[in-house]
Amino acid sequence: MTLERVCDDCGARTTAPAARCDCGEPLWLATDPGSFSWDDVSDSPGMWRYEALLPVGFPGGLAAAAGGTPLLRDDALDEYAGTTVHVKVEGSHPTGSFKDRGSAVGLAAIESGLVGDAAAVGTVSHGNMAMSTAAFATAADVPCVVFVPDDVPQARLDVIGQFDPAILTVAGEYSRLYDRTLELGPDNDVVFLNSDVPLRVEGQKTTVVELCEAFAPDVPDAIVLPVSSGGHASGVWKAVRELHEAGTIGRIPELYLTQAAACAPIADAFERGDSTVSRVEGGDTIAYSIANADPPSGTRALRAASETGGAVVSVTDDEIRDAQRVLATQAGLSVETASTTALAGTKQVVERGFVDSGDDVAVIATGTGLKEPPAEGSHDPVGTVGIDDIDAALGRFLGG
Amino acid sequence: MTLERVCDDCGARTTAPAARCDCGEPLWLATDPGSFSWDDVSDSPGMWRYEALLPVGFPGGLAAAAGGTPLLRDDALDEYAGTTVHVKVEGSHPTGSFKDRGSAVGLAAIESGLVGDAAAVGTVSHGNMAMSTAAFATAADVPCVVFVPDDVPQARLDVIGQFDPAILTVAGEYSRLYDRTLELGPDNDVVFLNSDVPLRVEGQKTTVVELCEAFAPDVPDAIVLPVSSGGHASGVWKAVRELHEAGTIGRIPELYLTQAAACAPIADAFERGDSTVSRVEGGDTIAYSIANADPPSGTRALRAASETGGAVVSVTDDEIRDAQRVLATQAGLSVETASTTALAGTKQVVERGFVDSGDDVAVIATGTGLKEPPAEGSHDPVGTVGIDDIDAALGRFLGG
Repeated sequence: MTLERVCDDCGARTTAPAARCDCGEPLWLATDPGSFSWDDVSDSPGMWRYEALLPVGFPGGLAAAAGGTPLLRDDALDEYAGTTVHVKVEGSHPTGSFKDRGSAVGLAAIESGLVGDAAAVGTVSHGNMAMSTAAFATAADVPCVVFVPDDVPQARLDVIGQFDPAILTVAGEYSRLYDRTLELGPDNDVVFLNSDVPLRVEGQKTTVVELCEAFAPDVPDAIVLPVSSGGHASGVWKAVRELHEAGTIGRIPELYLTQAAACAPIADAFERGDSTVSRVEGGDTIAYSIANADPPSGTRALRAASETGGAVVSVTDDEIRDAQRVLATQAGLSVETASTTALAGTKQVVERGFVDSGDDVAVIATGTGLKEPPAEGSHDPVGTVGIDDIDAALGRFLGG
Repeated sequence: MTLERVCDDCGARTTAPAARCDCGEPLWLATDPGSFSWDDVSDSPGMWRYEALLPVGFPGGLAAAAGGTPLLRDDALDEYAGTTVHVKVEGSHPTGSFKDRGSAVGLAAIESGLVGDAAAVGTVSHGNMAMSTAAFATAADVPCVVFVPDDVPQARLDVIGQFDPAILTVAGEYSRLYDRTLELGPDNDVVFLNSDVPLRVEGQKTTVVELCEAFAPDVPDAIVLPVSSGGHASGVWKAVRELHEAGTIGRIPELYLTQAAACAPIADAFERGDSTVSRVEGGDTIAYSIANADPPSGTRALRAASETGGAVVSVTDDEIRDAQRVLATQAGLSVETASTTALAGTKQVVERGFVDSGDDVAVIATGTGLKEPPAEGSHDPVGTVGIDDIDAALGRFLGG
């Protein structure tokens, strides 16, 4: 079987194992949803319920734990954001983020021989994607190489290293490595599962397919998610288009993408009304894992927002902290700093009138907060008591 | 509605909101599974699928994310343990451990008024149970008090504190606090969801109900889980008895419980053939979260193992590290140190002939490893490369 790839921008098609079109934009796998309906879901676990929409079926192993994430509502979040919020909890994945969906499809494709003579898998990341790729690679018994910058702290290496990939540090120009590995991968029989490559995008489709099935026969009015490279947004957009094309959903939800204000090339382009995204000089932000100054699928993500009637917005670190605090203290959810931009951004798009207060908004909480120290900082005990003073202490607690 | 409680040891019944029988053993809720079958599951999310077996129904909110955890197989784990291993991934819960099931039922009972005039919820823990109780309490808008020892590091307080409970440090004799809070709770209208109280045990039943449904119409031959207070084991045993009584499963799986060798009061009692568990002087172990020297449901857990034809075993820290490494590097699963005792114990019970090599063994991985630094320690890069040397580096990686 040969996987055909298509460029959604210029329409070119190729059977080469490429991630980029000659025009420079990211390639998608050419897939056909046919007349997919919710009756066509399979009995496979998690995201593999939607095998009919994927290039490869359930491979067993760790992949059983990809997808099938919870969706929840909490009135306090509605009050905060000003609309009806449904949170998709992607942090419940085995490595704690949405990246596991794309890693699962990438490794399943390698295991099944769908991508030819792959000797190994690789990625360029020192965060969620590195952990996810390494975990799924070792579970599939495929060698894995992870390129990290040479200033990564040892603690980060240890967390990635628990899944035993070969870690290579790169001296200088780490930002050039993303594209360079995509060029070199095919000749070396290494499948680089970087964040916006066609196989990873296929896996990322399933987040929103799950969402849409949960809403069926209705459709969420809007979907809000953080954007970094644009790979996740690319998958979400591809999914809603496929579902709409198949007649599974009657309309396409508006897609809203959120960035941190300190590094917001896609939001900047959207505000200017540009049709392409340009590199920016990014500053520091607590949402470090989405601070991508030169997003490879930036233009694709921009189109996803524009063409669905959505928007790309940016939020400040204070707004991010506020949303994180609300998620933890109101909804009981520990969410990664970068991921809380989605809730902060939801509040903003309601305030700006892009989204109505009566709308059903699906907010994708892309990663767990359990892997990072709480941004809120120090939390002190309210007091110290002796064992014989517990009764009085409970009285004071309830009285105060 | 009044909840009746029953002592499984002496048979006494009470409608008082007690956690302990006058005989000293833990009380269970008196529940009736009727003729429950897999056709009686509900459409509610996660563990609420089994509302018919619980004292309270799905309350909405964070509870939607409790239960429904993945079950997976990996040949490498079979090879390691010497039998057919099915891993139940409880770390995918919102606070990273199985504790969320019991917290969800406890808070749902309070929200629904099932336990009377509860003004607050409390717990005695500085680990998984503290996080879980605090998260579910704040999501249910119920005040929460958490008692911790006075030597808990600030980082731990911050992690629990993100869910904004009132934290009280206890000066001295922390071990006495577990029982003392259960005595004082009812008079103060504080529902203490300590680890083996009746409501938490009801929630913990659902782990194994999910397991049994996944195996239906077959039944796993054995279930292996770590044991600390005995509350989880108590719930698992109550569940399989209820399912068997209802005719939902044709036989009761053997229950195997695992402890760390340095602090193994229940395994010690099992090895001696005792019928009750006595306090031990526990030593240090990397499985610190199950190092309970005086387990309140120890005797209940001992009976669960004995009466189902199972066993209670202990494993060394080296065996725990080995199982953790195998789970991460072979199956791609990051599992909490204490939880990996279950896989290490599975290997042991196969080696000792308690479990046959052809048996289907469900191993409950009770908590995620993502919250703690990897025990394996330092993981160094295999090399450093410049951007123009990537091609050669890939060649060396594949050649080596």
